[in-house]
Amino acid sequence: MNSKKLNVVVWGENVHEHTNEVVGRLYPEGMHATIAEALRELGPELEVGTATLQEDECGLTEERLANTDVLTWWGHCAHGDVPDEIVDRVQKRVLEGMGLIVLHSGHYSKIFKRMMGTTCSLTWREAGEKERLWVCNPGHPIAQGVDKYIELEQTEMYGEPFGIPAPDEQVFVSWFEGGEVFRSGCCWNRGNGKIFYFRPGHETYPIYYDKNVRRVLINAVRWAAPQGSIWKDEAPNIPIEDAPEKIEKCGDSLHAAGEEGFK
Amino acid sequence: MNSKKLNVVVWGENVHEHTNEVVGRLYPEGMHATIAEALRELGPELEVGTATLQEDECGLTEERLANTDVLTWWGHCAHGDVPDEIVDRVQKRVLEGMGLIVLHSGHYSKIFKRMMGTTCSLTWREAGEKERLWVCNPGHPIAQGVDKYIELEQTEMYGEPFGIPAPDEQVFVSWFEGGEVFRSGCCWNRGNGKIFYFRPGHETYPIYYDKNVRRVLINAVRWAAPQGSIWKDEAPNIPIEDAPEKIEKCGDSLHAAGEEGFK
Amino acid sequence: MNSKKLNVVVWGENVHEHTNEVVGRLYPEGMHATIAEALRELGPELEVGTATLQEDECGLTEERLANTDVLTWWGHCAHGDVPDEIVDRVQKRVLEGMGLIVLHSGHYSKIFKRMMGTTCSLTWREAGEKERLWVCNPGHPIAQGVDKYIELEQTEMYGEPFGIPAPDEQVFVSWFEGGEVFRSGCCWNRGNGKIFYFRPGHETYPIYYDKNVRRVLINAVRWAAPQGSIWKDEAPNIPIEDAPEKIEKCGDSLHAAGEEGFK
Amino acid sequence: MNSKKLNVVVWGENVHEHTNEVVGRLYPEGMHATIAEALRELGPELEVGTATLQEDECGLTEERLANTDVLTWWGHCAHGDVPDEIVDRVQKRVLEGMGLIVLHSGHYSKIFKRMMGTTCSLTWREAGEKERLWVCNPGHPIAQGVDKYIELEQTEMYGEPFGIPAPDEQVFVSWFEGGEVFRSGCCWNRGNGKIFYFRPGHETYPIYYDKNVRRVLINAVRWAAPQGSIWKDEAPNIPIEDAPEKIEKCGDSLHAAGEEGFK
Repeated sequence: MNSKKLNVVVWGENVHEHTNEVVGRLYPEGMHATIAEALRELGPELEVGTATLQEDECGLTEERLANTDVLTWWGHCAHGDVPDEIVDRVQKRVLEGMGLIVLHSGHYSKIFKRMMGTTCSLTWREAGEKERLWVCNPGHPIAQGVDKYIELEQTEMYGEPFGIPAPDEQVFVSWFEGGEVFRSGCCWNRGNGKIFYFRPGHETYPIYYDKNVRRVLINAVRWAAPQGSIWKDEAPNIPIEDAPEKIEKCGDSLHAAGEEGFK
Repeated sequence: MNSKKLNVVVWGENVHEHTNEVVGRLYPEGMHATIAEALRELGPELEVGTATLQEDECGLTEERLANTDVLTWWGHCAHGDVPDEIVDRVQKRVLEGMGLIVLHSGHYSKIFKRMMGTTCSLTWREAGEKERLWVCNPGHPIAQGVDKYIELEQTEMYGEPFGIPAPDEQVFVSWFEGGEVFRSGCCWNRGNGKIFYFRPGHETYPIYYDKNVRRVLINAVRWAAPQGSIWKDEAPNIPIEDAPEKIEKCGDSLHAAGEEGFK
Repeated sequence: MNSKKLNVVVWGENVHEHTNEVVGRLYPEGMHATIAEALRELGPELEVGTATLQEDECGLTEERLANTDVLTWWGHCAHGDVPDEIVDRVQKRVLEGMGLIVLHSGHYSKIFKRMMGTTCSLTWREAGEKERLWVCNPGHPIAQGVDKYIELEQTEMYGEPFGIPAPDEQVFVSWFEGGEVFRSGCCWNRGNGKIFYFRPGHETYPIYYDKNVRRVLINAVRWAAPQGSIWKDEAPNIPIEDAPEKIEKCGDSLHAAGEEGFK
Repeated sequence: MNSKKLNVVVWGENVHEHTNEVVGRLYPEGMHATIAEALRELGPELEVGTATLQEDECGLTEERLANTDVLTWWGHCAHGDVPDEIVDRVQKRVLEGMGLIVLHSGHYSKIFKRMMGTTCSLTWREAGEKERLWVCNPGHPIAQGVDKYIELEQTEMYGEPFGIPAPDEQVFVSWFEGGEVFRSGCCWNRGNGKIFYFRPGHETYPIYYDKNVRRVLINAVRWAAPQGSIWKDEAPNIPIEDAPEKIEKCGDSLHAAGEEGFK
């Protein structure tokens, strides 16, 4: 596992960078380019590529995903433009073991809602207010190199209730100047895949240039990397003669011998 | 909450009852009718109705679901025939607070996979073998009235690995004559809704006439009933003047004042 | 279950009320008396008693605990004076099914640390600052009757990291004027018992007269009430002749037949 | 982290090896020696030592524990002989980040009950029957190199209900010839530490010579290794002048400025 580079794909919706002057000025090459650059700088052991909504198959072909260890996801205004079959494909790979890092407004992406099974709703306000992300677990790999908290001078606010399943691990909780709180760094295991949601990232502020945010991104990518073999989705019939204990058929059946199950 | 009857809808795919002679003989009125009868008998405080795939909108109109407290789900060969919009509708109601009891081959239903976010795959064998469901938590409301285990003489086997998120509570684990094990009674919270998966129920055996299985069904329905108010899916913007703490706008914005968020 | 009153015991350390003038003025009969009064007022179906550190066996005899459905716990300066055998006794009853509500500085009580297995540490500051407890799950039974948040004008601050196992359900997260956040309403299942930690309650402020805090207390007591039979701690030997499947002894043994296990 | 060897301590009660002829014959140097040898053979990157009940301070001095990354624990008849202060010390280190692997009858050890907060009870039978441990999550690092299941020809039986908090991850579930099931491979996070319970290991059978069991042991040790910095147990007061947001003291206080909190 050590000899091979970890393949990371940074996915970006890449729309506001071209339609909003502020975003275009902050991220002239696109937010995905800035995130990818941060990962390359901090993780020389990674092989980092990018993919965007505008590419064929969103840049996420079966073959490319098959070779991706960790995928990061930023989207906002065009969640609905990601075809369902791409979402199916990403979900399948996460369940097989690919790590998934969902960023900021990606909370409403099809893939995050698919993995969570919940609304992923929240409250929000765009006032350029201060956010302070507190570390809830100082020994968690994703919090390494971060002090007691991360302070961001200007952010969009996201507030509770956040419509997610109870996180397996809570890494950050945010305080906002305007009076709200938010579970801003959450971990889940799903199938073989590890999922991390990280709140910062509003496109009108230079969030992805912040050194603490970049530290969390590289930590999260390393944490989410697959640690075991692939778990394929299949529901194999175990023929009676292959039962670990010797048994004989009795009673009525629905399926003829050798028939596949319904799916 | 005590003054009003609990509304339960028993959903049945209702196909094998008409296409397979064995199933038709065991459940001449359909499996849903047998399950509904069990709930009516054991739960005089319930208002129990049924719905099937063959009805308009699968028998699950917006209005009916809005008045349903707990929905039970059995499907097998026709999972794919349930329209996605019905699945969306059921998911929405579960997240608002409706309880959901998923039975047996319902592990591969669209609604269960939707709520879990995982493959829900497993291994299986149809040999009419013995199953013993062990109680893992004797004080759990769903296990009340059940002894140390439930024994079923003839069942289809389901085996691990079961592709689910780690259950919030494990109520039953099954032993099979042929040598496998399975997490056969699992609880999850999702949004405001409670979800229980219960394994027994293969259609070629008289499982839903078993008194212990019926005991678990009524317990599960009572456990899954909503205990609080509805949680609507919405992501409200909090205008700056409504922030709990007084703040002033600074920095650039994406949204004009009063604009709705992207979804 | 409906015919019998729920027995609640409100445990109070009852020290600062007599040694600190401010506390004595706010809670002349002791904080336990104020909490008990709130529960009696809001829960006419409850049978509410109190117990204090100063009573024999801390007021928690074997017999009394055996008849207690829910115990609430407030302590601060005298955690160390609660004898270990009383802690053992309370833990045993929680695991059998008694609900446990731990309040404020009770995070460092022996019983809470015992149930959690962790340090239960946190950061703190006594500045009489504002706290806002946000509801993370508006449909949770403990949050019923509470608006989007509870605001307390003057509180002691508790801050993350809070040294607890990941909560099974997160009901409240707090915002503090001084800039910190805290997971201030957390649920866990342990054995048959339900545990709720609720942060508010510093003794120099009139917290337990607040109507929202009182609403949460009554909700929590109702939520934590046992819903099933008792689960006794025992590790029974299953004699070979009582195995569900017929087996014969083979290989060497450590224990003679009928011997008890080590504990 | 890669440059430094991982320090592993294999703790053994080391009693039955000297008092029971069968055990002595199977493990002439003690079970701890056999387990340590397995780890050394499979994990050349590890520094593996042993410690036993008979040594001073159970072989677990403050200094030694401070340098231990992962501790494995086997005990049975002498759980009560481990002094509480040693248990305190081990717990403290686990919460700081040391991994803990608890084996077989260690389910009733003081340290495991301390970390879980529950009874850790189960049912048992010593009949030399067959056990089959099924992998519930084929992609989990602890299951790597293991096929669909591990089969052990002769084992002691442990049966449900197992009195533990719901595991964060379920790696194995066991099937027993005599008809029971058991959650035989369970993961928890507590503080900064990772805990794995692994059932096999009855001392009258050559379990720790089995190559699959040894594979799980090495996987578990690697999985449980600390991945971040130490999290010290302390509850620091944050002086008002150090609050992240500027606040002023108001209201009454219990503590004088600079005073430590109660513990």
